[in-house]
Amino acid sequence: MGKVICIGLGPGDPDLMSVKAHRLLTGASHIAYFRKEGRKGKARQIVEGLIPEGATEYPMEYPVTTEIHFSDPEYKRLLAEFYDDWTERLAKLAATDDVIVLCEGDPFLYGSFMHLHSRLQGKAPVEVVPGITGMSGCWTATDMPITWGDDVMTVLMATLPEEELAERAAHTNALVVMKIGRNLPKLRRALGAAGRLHDAWIVEQGTMPGQKVRKLADTTDEVPYFAVVLVHGQGRRP
Amino acid sequence: MGKVICIGLGPGDPDLMSVKAHRLLTGASHIAYFRKEGRKGKARQIVEGLIPEGATEYPMEYPVTTEIHFSDPEYKRLLAEFYDDWTERLAKLAATDDVIVLCEGDPFLYGSFMHLHSRLQGKAPVEVVPGITGMSGCWTATDMPITWGDDVMTVLMATLPEEELAERAAHTNALVVMKIGRNLPKLRRALGAAGRLHDAWIVEQGTMPGQKVRKLADTTDEVPYFAVVLVHGQGRRP
Repeated sequence: MGKVICIGLGPGDPDLMSVKAHRLLTGASHIAYFRKEGRKGKARQIVEGLIPEGATEYPMEYPVTTEIHFSDPEYKRLLAEFYDDWTERLAKLAATDDVIVLCEGDPFLYGSFMHLHSRLQGKAPVEVVPGITGMSGCWTATDMPITWGDDVMTVLMATLPEEELAERAAHTNALVVMKIGRNLPKLRRALGAAGRLHDAWIVEQGTMPGQKVRKLADTTDEVPYFAVVLVHGQGRRP
Repeated sequence: MGKVICIGLGPGDPDLMSVKAHRLLTGASHIAYFRKEGRKGKARQIVEGLIPEGATEYPMEYPVTTEIHFSDPEYKRLLAEFYDDWTERLAKLAATDDVIVLCEGDPFLYGSFMHLHSRLQGKAPVEVVPGITGMSGCWTATDMPITWGDDVMTVLMATLPEEELAERAAHTNALVVMKIGRNLPKLRRALGAAGRLHDAWIVEQGTMPGQKVRKLADTTDEVPYFAVVLVHGQGRRP
């Protein structure tokens, strides 16, 4: 009798995964991870060189990522089918062995594993090991605290409408924005309207070899979907 | 020539500290940590049994915690003096050796180390190793994802005024509230006014032996300052 164990791998530097995640990973026989078709996968990249010899890998390839908008019923149908299918396959494996599912960052914070987690209930025992979030890796990369004292922190997805981004950015102390990519021009306008653009930083590849930390106002080129935009709180300090 | 290296220890379970933090800790000669006078200290408790033989410990005891309100100028003066003093002492040690500073959770998210971090600039090289946040340990303990899809997440301190807590709790998807303790009755009223009380959970000692996960509405006893209140987002899911 095994379990499905999702381990948070942290922000990217393999040295930042937890002692527990590292132990589970290096002792695993079955290792599953999400990836976009034709790509290596971010989670798989983090564990390069750490997968034990003889372990079986299960790349779970999304049938669609951004080719169809998430509001399209077809997007929902394809993904539901995909998660249903992998639920059955992982539950079957877990009947006899532990299965480790890799997840970059922290699984329960905007992770994909949650779609398997809910479906696996009643079909296999499930455990989640938290990880250092990608946003934490990014604010640490700026070498500045994200929050002080009683600062309010808001975490937003750049996929939200421009007006909502502007409104929320104007009414928080610390701000974290994820899912950037092609949403950058909209986010830049929203932060400008909120008077926060010149305090904003953008971090790409936080804690990884290609790490880049810049003021957002100076950034005119394209940035990856997984870049993180930060406005640091300025709260109470003795 | 040494460095001052602050390592995030994560939410409490020592198995959840990063591989990097674990390596730095178990190889350390000088280990400093904050604590309330007369207490063992939360960070020190997490590393019980992991401090190498022969290492020197430096308990940094707060001159005041909640005996004086933080708005009192005397609170500010005492704490500033305390941080100034330890900045000098750690910088002096770092002139020849690495000094490891322990920090529960993630150092740059509402941590005390940031008050040393800013003062140490120009006096000693400083490095920060991120950690799994306490809030992440707590939402993982509820066995439910905190955010889905494009959910907005707001992190609040229960020390804020009741009206602000209610207003912000009503206008977010996912909610995390920290610094609970004696602020619980106020927070409960605020969540009630926001219509979020019956969806709220409270986690004490997340990831630690005394872990307790309850619906907030059922909680009438006193809870620790470090308890975390959570309202999970209910966003998009295929």
